[in-house]
Amino acid sequence: MATPTGRSPELRHDPVSNRWVIFSPARAKRPSDFKSKSPENPDPNSSSGNSCPFCIGNESQCAPEIFRFPPDLGNPNWKIRVIENLFPALSRTGEYPSEAGGRSLKGLGFHDVVIEAPVHSVQLSDLGAGEIGQVLLAYKKRIEQIATFDSIKYIQVFKNHGASAGASLSHSHSQILALPVVPPAVSTRLDGTKEYFEKTGKCSLCEVRAKELIIDESTHFISIVPFAATFAFEIWIVPKDHSSHFHELDSDQAVDLAGLLRLMLKKMSTQLNNPPFNFMIQTSPLRVEESRLPYSHWFLQIVPHLGGVAGFEIGSGCHINPVFPEDAAKVLREVNVN
Amino acid sequence: MATPTGRSPELRHDPVSNRWVIFSPARAKRPSDFKSKSPENPDPNSSSGNSCPFCIGNESQCAPEIFRFPPDLGNPNWKIRVIENLFPALSRTGEYPSEAGGRSLKGLGFHDVVIEAPVHSVQLSDLGAGEIGQVLLAYKKRIEQIATFDSIKYIQVFKNHGASAGASLSHSHSQILALPVVPPAVSTRLDGTKEYFEKTGKCSLCEVRAKELIIDESTHFISIVPFAATFAFEIWIVPKDHSSHFHELDSDQAVDLAGLLRLMLKKMSTQLNNPPFNFMIQTSPLRVEESRLPYSHWFLQIVPHLGGVAGFEIGSGCHINPVFPEDAAKVLREVNVN
Ligand SMILES: Nc1ncnc2c1ncn2[C@@H]1O[C@H](COP(=O)(O)OP(=O)(O)O[C@H]2O[C@H](CO)[C@@H](O)[C@H](O)[C@H]2O)[C@@H](O)[C@H]1O
Ligand SMILES: Nc1ncnc2c1ncn2[C@@H]1O[C@H](COP(=O)(O)OP(=O)(O)O[C@H]2O[C@H](CO)[C@@H](O)[C@H](O)[C@H]2O)[C@@H](O)[C@H]1O
Repeated sequence: MATPTGRSPELRHDPVSNRWVIFSPARAKRPSDFKSKSPENPDPNSSSGNSCPFCIGNESQCAPEIFRFPPDLGNPNWKIRVIENLFPALSRTGEYPSEAGGRSLKGLGFHDVVIEAPVHSVQLSDLGAGEIGQVLLAYKKRIEQIATFDSIKYIQVFKNHGASAGASLSHSHSQILALPVVPPAVSTRLDGTKEYFEKTGKCSLCEVRAKELIIDESTHFISIVPFAATFAFEIWIVPKDHSSHFHELDSDQAVDLAGLLRLMLKKMSTQLNNPPFNFMIQTSPLRVEESRLPYSHWFLQIVPHLGGVAGFEIGSGCHINPVFPEDAAKVLREVNVN
Repeated sequence: MATPTGRSPELRHDPVSNRWVIFSPARAKRPSDFKSKSPENPDPNSSSGNSCPFCIGNESQCAPEIFRFPPDLGNPNWKIRVIENLFPALSRTGEYPSEAGGRSLKGLGFHDVVIEAPVHSVQLSDLGAGEIGQVLLAYKKRIEQIATFDSIKYIQVFKNHGASAGASLSHSHSQILALPVVPPAVSTRLDGTKEYFEKTGKCSLCEVRAKELIIDESTHFISIVPFAATFAFEIWIVPKDHSSHFHELDSDQAVDLAGLLRLMLKKMSTQLNNPPFNFMIQTSPLRVEESRLPYSHWFLQIVPHLGGVAGFEIGSGCHINPVFPEDAAKVLREVNVN
């Protein structure tokens, strides 16, 4: 599907910040159903029925479907749809560059949307663990499809919930953005875990078990506030057994993870008054060298939007977090939800 | 001055993100005069007179003054005040750690506020070039004072304007945060300019002269939209002659820079409808090795807040910018302001 403007997206590398940036003019035109960016907790019914392209019955307003769940295409009663993003940050067509050495690179990749529920007013945490598990398995399935493209180096799964966490549409959804480069935060993360591995012989994510930082655990996962959390009340859900890629997840683990994710979202919502939030799957580059696997350990990161990122953080890359992780963990551990 | 809570701030290093984070419980209590974080352009008179600690006449509501301009302490008609931040992210007292090797480090440093004008309704760009030049010279003077402390490695000067750019007080001000570590974005920046230098033998900042990216220039400075701008309509003001540290600025250069800064703020305000913004001085670490000076070149970065940072950016460290830099430069170049 062509992007709505004539100009193709492009990736550029800045030698100063040593960072790749995606330039995507088409993105400027995407719609918003929030009147203003202000309400922290927009009415989930604010744009229901006809006007929301993600609602059941409005499939024709969307970019092409990739697959749905249950997988029967003839069945109008879908639970989850994975579709192309109508305003993609990267385009799926065009010749892939053979070299990524220069300062600029064609913006080729995949940008999909996962519609998590057919009904406008249903949020992810309203679903049962089994249903959330299916959303996670939809991510996995789509990642496995995209992973067959040699040119794709990293796949970022993320969710924006609430206007001030960046969501432009309030119908519950997440996104999958497949990139032709390994993004800077991922390289930095792997350099960091490598350093720890070389010093201690251990994977730093296998080691995150400090009692005062634990919120809860399930059969296969542990949820913690990281020791040096970037954001207040940031939560990580980490597989207990070493695993490099999110898409190694099997169906049992998916439901187990879903239960813990649901619990964390409910605790966060109860304790912090339904804040806008993002979650991100922090996985490993697709064709990571074998030697890096021992210190590559995926996790799911949840970030409520409480204070803003301002001049100091933008300038220095250093964040100010007003809440000590052990205090945040205690608060989240102790709050009861149903 | 003691922080309002008992617990001292602390810096912690995360081996995963390889990032230092400041934990500062006192920050959670700082006041806000914005009723909500919503208005993009808050009424500059929203908190004037008695309730604003930064207004002339309310000096006693502030943390201690460091110096004022004009420098005559007996003169109540100050134009600029540099004061301690009442809710500092780092504290100025306590023993400095001798080693910064571990995972956690005491949160010692300096956190000051620069009150840019005595009157509540006056914004920085309302001042004349001479007056803005004095604000820049106040930064310089304070940096020179702090630079005498061996334990301080980097000094971040930044300004938040508008609630959604993080400002909690609307009276025109900026901040100076002096850190006991070199923050990650600064190391990354120096690694990036080093790589360029090793390849080309040139300083990448001395080279930013691509015609289509230039907005304007003054005697000593050039203003551009960087080739790989992280944010839409991001502006850099770069000294034409190679200079590693902002505080090398002399008085003539300060007024010259002030004129160009004022012009950029006015252009941005006219063209983008008075957006919230941040500016940051991107300088070099205080005791940077001689060998790094040839590729260390300071600049002033201006970032309007137009779209948000959301899940993708937080997860990957990769930003999506909907506006090509050459288009942004053209728009800013062509808009007329008075
Ligand atoms: N009919 C349709 N069919 C298919 N897709 C449709 C569609 N109508 C809209 N879309 C797409 O649906 C997506 C909805 O995504 P979100 O609400 O999570 O945030 P968005 O991507 O807009 O931007 C947020 O997330 C990004 C990435 O983190 C940030 O860059 C940005 O600042 C922030 O606002 C958009 O990407 C949009 O392009
Ligand atoms: N009476 C008084 N005397 C002296 N100082 C006083 C004072 N009353 C308030 N202050 C201080 O004045 C400063 C005003 O600063 P800003 O409005 O630029 O943003 P703030 O630092 O609150 O946070 C923004 O910037 C930081 C750093 O970028 C982000 O972490 C944060 O999320 C964002 O909201 C505050 O730091 C406050 O502590």
